[in-house]
Amino acid sequence: MSNPKPLLIGQYDSPFVRRVGIVLTLYGVAFDHAPWSTFGDVVEIAPYNPLLRVPVLVRPDGESLIETSVIIDCLDEDAGAAALVASSGAARRQCLKLCALSGGIAEKAVALIYARIFNENTSPAWIDRGHGQIAAGLDALQHDFATVKTPYWQGDTIGHADIAFGCAWGFLQQAHPGVFASDRWQALAAHAARLETLPAFAAVTQAFIPPK
Amino acid sequence: MSNPKPLLIGQYDSPFVRRVGIVLTLYGVAFDHAPWSTFGDVVEIAPYNPLLRVPVLVRPDGESLIETSVIIDCLDEDAGAAALVASSGAARRQCLKLCALSGGIAEKAVALIYARIFNENTSPAWIDRGHGQIAAGLDALQHDFATVKTPYWQGDTIGHADIAFGCAWGFLQQAHPGVFASDRWQALAAHAARLETLPAFAAVTQAFIPPK
Repeated sequence: MSNPKPLLIGQYDSPFVRRVGIVLTLYGVAFDHAPWSTFGDVVEIAPYNPLLRVPVLVRPDGESLIETSVIIDCLDEDAGAAALVASSGAARRQCLKLCALSGGIAEKAVALIYARIFNENTSPAWIDRGHGQIAAGLDALQHDFATVKTPYWQGDTIGHADIAFGCAWGFLQQAHPGVFASDRWQALAAHAARLETLPAFAAVTQAFIPPK
Repeated sequence: MSNPKPLLIGQYDSPFVRRVGIVLTLYGVAFDHAPWSTFGDVVEIAPYNPLLRVPVLVRPDGESLIETSVIIDCLDEDAGAAALVASSGAARRQCLKLCALSGGIAEKAVALIYARIFNENTSPAWIDRGHGQIAAGLDALQHDFATVKTPYWQGDTIGHADIAFGCAWGFLQQAHPGVFASDRWQALAAHAARLETLPAFAAVTQAFIPPK
């Protein structure tokens, strides 16, 4: 086999690519990284994902996985008992729900950037709605986090809920500076700041570059 | 317990809500349905999902699940051996990838509708990109489907790949009539037409109503 490592496609300024990169790192999976842009490197990405989206994870056998939740599901299976999520039951549902909240926040944050760049005169109501969705999502996360008594969201070790949140929060602050103020979400801001000090977060990072 | 049934929130003209409704039906889960609109019924939806998105599945214990893939994951767990996806391995990866392709196509189809309604002067390049992503996704699905020798995508019985595809295709034809022509994707169109004859598809359907 010429290339025994998986290949992660996408730039780390995407909260979704970053999440997969951090999960790979925490799982101890050595991987190659192709920081291709979904707008600048369409020709490179298309053979791996016709939807031109990232992240894509190309397995050593050449199979490409698309969509963050799918990639994470497959990595969890490979990780077995070391998976960053419970395999079933209430703890799994809770984890997936927290990831859905963080992922939804990140998607809205991306959509607002796209609207700004690719449109003129986007409806103010639509923009307000997006900001409101993000803020309400953060409120829900903070409400949940207030019940946490452990160092991480679901226990003494990091899990997907922490990682998805950290990536979403970091992206929000970079892509919408000053809009989602830390003083309203102090507990979340503190958790995110602590996550950013972890080696896996520090190793998998890139300043936000808006699409052109 | 006053309400032992789960509650599915969202209108069936959403390909994602419809997918969950069909899966519930195929799993034989009796459920209540609240056809709330993400734009018209914000007050009703907000307590269940701060992101104001559908589908939401409220479990009989009051816990609400958000995000299609999360809801499906939980329903699969409840279904056990009857799950509409393999529990691991290559067959699971293949199923999740096909669902990601169909889901991505549906997301782009929705995004194009939103762009049309909530913006003026959306960049033609962005619209062209969206149409191209959908067409390339359909090409990839059709390429894969050409290898199928069984009545359904992954065997003799229906699975998530079929359902996700059927919902995406039906939405495309309703929301973008005539744009994604059946003559380019004849095999897909024929598969979709057959799916629509199934009782679960016929029971869970609604004509497309654009958001205002």
